[in-house]
Amino acid sequence: MRTSIATVSLSGSLTEKLTAASRAGFDGVEIFENDLLASPLSPREIRVRCADLGLTVDLYQPMRDIEAVPRDEFTRNLRRARHKFALMRELGADTVLVCSSVSPLAIDDDGLAAGQLSELASLAQDFGIRVAYEALAWGRHVSTYDHAWRIVEAAGHPALGTCLDSFHILSRGSDPKGIEDIPGEKIFFLQLADAPLLAMDVLQWSRHYRCFPGQGGFDVAGLAGHVLRAGYDGPLSLEVFNDVFRQAEAGPTAVDAQRSLLVLQEALGVAELPAPVVPTGVAFAELVTPDAEPVSALLGALGFARTARHRSKPVDLWELGEARILVNTGPAARRDGTGLAAIGLESPDPRAAARRAEALLAPVLPRRRAPEDAPLDAVAAPDGTELFFCATGRDRELPHWRADFAEVPHDPGPAPARIDHLALVQPWHQYDEATLFHRSVLGLHAQESVDVADPYGLLRSRAVTNADGSVRIALGVGAAPADDTLHAQHIALAVEDVVAAARAFRAAGGALLPIPANYHDDLAARYEFAQEELEIYRDLGILYDRDAGGVFRHCYTRTVGRVFFELVEREPGYRGYGAQNAPVRLAAQHAGRPAR
Amino acid sequence: MRTSIATVSLSGSLTEKLTAASRAGFDGVEIFENDLLASPLSPREIRVRCADLGLTVDLYQPMRDIEAVPRDEFTRNLRRARHKFALMRELGADTVLVCSSVSPLAIDDDGLAAGQLSELASLAQDFGIRVAYEALAWGRHVSTYDHAWRIVEAAGHPALGTCLDSFHILSRGSDPKGIEDIPGEKIFFLQLADAPLLAMDVLQWSRHYRCFPGQGGFDVAGLAGHVLRAGYDGPLSLEVFNDVFRQAEAGPTAVDAQRSLLVLQEALGVAELPAPVVPTGVAFAELVTPDAEPVSALLGALGFARTARHRSKPVDLWELGEARILVNTGPAARRDGTGLAAIGLESPDPRAAARRAEALLAPVLPRRRAPEDAPLDAVAAPDGTELFFCATGRDRELPHWRADFAEVPHDPGPAPARIDHLALVQPWHQYDEATLFHRSVLGLHAQESVDVADPYGLLRSRAVTNADGSVRIALGVGAAPADDTLHAQHIALAVEDVVAAARAFRAAGGALLPIPANYHDDLAARYEFAQEELEIYRDLGILYDRDAGGVFRHCYTRTVGRVFFELVEREPGYRGYGAQNAPVRLAAQHAGRPAR
Repeated sequence: MRTSIATVSLSGSLTEKLTAASRAGFDGVEIFENDLLASPLSPREIRVRCADLGLTVDLYQPMRDIEAVPRDEFTRNLRRARHKFALMRELGADTVLVCSSVSPLAIDDDGLAAGQLSELASLAQDFGIRVAYEALAWGRHVSTYDHAWRIVEAAGHPALGTCLDSFHILSRGSDPKGIEDIPGEKIFFLQLADAPLLAMDVLQWSRHYRCFPGQGGFDVAGLAGHVLRAGYDGPLSLEVFNDVFRQAEAGPTAVDAQRSLLVLQEALGVAELPAPVVPTGVAFAELVTPDAEPVSALLGALGFARTARHRSKPVDLWELGEARILVNTGPAARRDGTGLAAIGLESPDPRAAARRAEALLAPVLPRRRAPEDAPLDAVAAPDGTELFFCATGRDRELPHWRADFAEVPHDPGPAPARIDHLALVQPWHQYDEATLFHRSVLGLHAQESVDVADPYGLLRSRAVTNADGSVRIALGVGAAPADDTLHAQHIALAVEDVVAAARAFRAAGGALLPIPANYHDDLAARYEFAQEELEIYRDLGILYDRDAGGVFRHCYTRTVGRVFFELVEREPGYRGYGAQNAPVRLAAQHAGRPAR
Repeated sequence: MRTSIATVSLSGSLTEKLTAASRAGFDGVEIFENDLLASPLSPREIRVRCADLGLTVDLYQPMRDIEAVPRDEFTRNLRRARHKFALMRELGADTVLVCSSVSPLAIDDDGLAAGQLSELASLAQDFGIRVAYEALAWGRHVSTYDHAWRIVEAAGHPALGTCLDSFHILSRGSDPKGIEDIPGEKIFFLQLADAPLLAMDVLQWSRHYRCFPGQGGFDVAGLAGHVLRAGYDGPLSLEVFNDVFRQAEAGPTAVDAQRSLLVLQEALGVAELPAPVVPTGVAFAELVTPDAEPVSALLGALGFARTARHRSKPVDLWELGEARILVNTGPAARRDGTGLAAIGLESPDPRAAARRAEALLAPVLPRRRAPEDAPLDAVAAPDGTELFFCATGRDRELPHWRADFAEVPHDPGPAPARIDHLALVQPWHQYDEATLFHRSVLGLHAQESVDVADPYGLLRSRAVTNADGSVRIALGVGAAPADDTLHAQHIALAVEDVVAAARAFRAAGGALLPIPANYHDDLAARYEFAQEELEIYRDLGILYDRDAGGVFRHCYTRTVGRVFFELVEREPGYRGYGAQNAPVRLAAQHAGRPAR
């Protein structure tokens, strides 16, 4: 189906928005009046610019407070409409949105509304324009889609139809099934927006918190299905008022938007994408650093052994059980210090995984970073993290990244371990985008978002996982405006015995994050421990959590650059990540930073 | 009355919060459990630190989900309480907050609740501790203050009383008058918070949007009055959960908080402050600049004449009618370029105005900037703008700032003018603080806050004015995180004929901000103008607005450094500032910036 996006959904000048929409693959745009008024381009120039960019102008909006008003008011409205219809001809837009009136002058009289809308439609018809009448959720007398449709039906004018907006329908809890009773040719336009489920004033909810389909809590695909079954054949158009998208760079927002419509069309069965290939494990995590020493010392103390070296690049492989860390001191090393730059994901079918990612607009990275490397499929996540689809030692037919590495002499590691989860800090305006990316591109499941109180502001965090928990990525975002570098990324290692692992780490010279005694005193109040057990936790800085499924014990290393490690002992049934301990951990990390 | 603040209301580590509370003059604190858990100081050390800072620990909180639960659950709760009571003795806190249960286990049985709270109070009594039971607005079975009080009354235990929280009471629309029926000695604690009037889930509203009294829409003083009449003699304590305060620097937030309680006590008649001295006009606006040339050229084109020079400092006085601008190239000139650094306010009693400001914790600036200057009373606003209280040529007994200036030869200005309003950009986290400051310190009236769509994010703006509109200051704040320097300050000059003024400005070589033709085409659709009139507006970039009281016509100069000028022609009844034109103006300013 054709895709479209309202200019209000993107940040910047009108031309910036049009460029971003075009580059993200949209077929058309809804032009918002304020964007046009503020543009130095004339309507005709905007039409030409759109055409150059391969965009049609699918809707001009809005006209407000038009119908069911006293005659003299309506006469003024018609005068204004005539101006706008002339402008729309210049603009090349053939459909205008009319929102149900919120005016205090509006009269609760469907007959009057139908009559005036019919008059408006006649005027529009003279200009070759159609009028799409939409029920605002907070309309004064008309606030439901079926009511708006009854008025349109009563008017019976060929140039008058209805516009459906998923937010206005779903935010009121209306049953969208009745949409199928509207003749498809009378549905002139379909606007799609999702939103988180908030209990708040619907107007504020709509103006500030809309998001792209799949990023909120509405069944947008279900609604769109009803619209298609009604026979609608216009574009799927996104109309998203969102404070964050107003600020975030238009280019990535437009890609995020287009991705949401691709996934929606897949759900609707009107577009076929390569099927998701869910990763089955973490092959490796790659750290880049300008100086390998601090990281090497940390890995050594954790029990990792340096097992291999890349044949042609300054990359070392460190292993501890099934946990593998690449340490890259090559040119990718960033000036801002040691960071988590890439993740290798075990994939049942790396090529197919990359094909789906590419179909969903993930930037595909060169398959070989150097001519002599094994070809590896890789894409970039929205935060820039490189995701490699790997088939570690699993199939001779598939390229094996280990082949690029030459073994070096090493002792066997002291204990089994694997990567429990990876925690990535997202740019503050890409939290919803990152979740949709990991869900749709990788086929992971998103858990609930939780607020975490950092001493210097609220953070949010949400995990995306595969079914058996062998891939867990925690996506975090700081309170805006935050110094992102305050919030380090981390690698959590699952160990069999966190106490033994912490002791071994310390014995090897590693520095554990000290946890305040008050925390462990509180543990004693909340749970019953043998005195000795609690003293051990206190000594090692081990934190404790418990849910219905089991116990979680964890501790942290000091931070190197922007990365630290966590040691976790997770009972199989425990589902979380110790979020309730995060405030204490964050405060301890702040306390350990150099005085400001 | 004694004043107190909950540590959760401030940003930072516990010791950072305590220091800020002490410096702002609070007598005590409520210590939040999470702040204690995350602190490296033991409870006893915290007590000593508080004592050093002159702070008492007035409350420890919270205990949750204590009452009206099955016996085995309550036994666990008592076990936990015993730990906490022992901790509170170390901490020196004699009152604990118990919030009404939200647990799914809670039973709707007031008798059970009273019995268990009585048991808890007996245990507390052994430790010399009192239990203050509070109804959370979202409590499972107990959500109103009168219900909580009935349970406390039924329990009849001397160590059990109630805690009143203005948010929980007013957010539910409860009538606070019934508070007066509670014996004062059974009101163990009073927590105060204001909040903007939002229609949203009360828990989210409470956790993220509370603010200090006078910053929201609640009648907090009215509620506190009922509490005092009931005989309460404990502290006035602020418990404010606010996402912005969690991030903003603790020091200024604590001052803002203390100021809110001073104003509240004044309203309650329990504290006497020097009466407000409302300014009666704008004496001058002072620009600081490292280079006087661009500003001088702009002022000259606007018709200002350089009329005088400071006798000892590099400060010029420019005048146009009653509008006076000081141009200061002295050491105060900032590296970030030309900016609005100070405002002279005409005051009926400058000394009294300064005394009130000082009583409300405004930093008082040295009365003389140089030994030979006339002594001037001045304070700093939260954004750092210096406010001088002036008596320009009005009274021989009062110091006259003009006396520091020596006349220079000049021509008379071309037309009468005065300063219509000044627009100041606030740091993003000080919007509410700035409003409270200008209202309470200067006695100005605050108008409604409006959202303004900038192409790169939503801004908010709110004007504070005196009764006759001769002092109007627009406080603006960008969307966070914003580059504040994008949003320039400005000085609006009221002229008799904006068309003539704009023409004269242009004829004198001034550059007006060009406004897109689409804007004026839209004006033609909205209003009826003579064709010639609209062409004039189009040519000069004049914007137009109208409200019930009159018409507003305005245009803008190009920006110099961080400052631009606005020319406004305001019909006397017009109340606004052309906010609906702001998106077009902002877009035009962005378009005029160097390409990024």
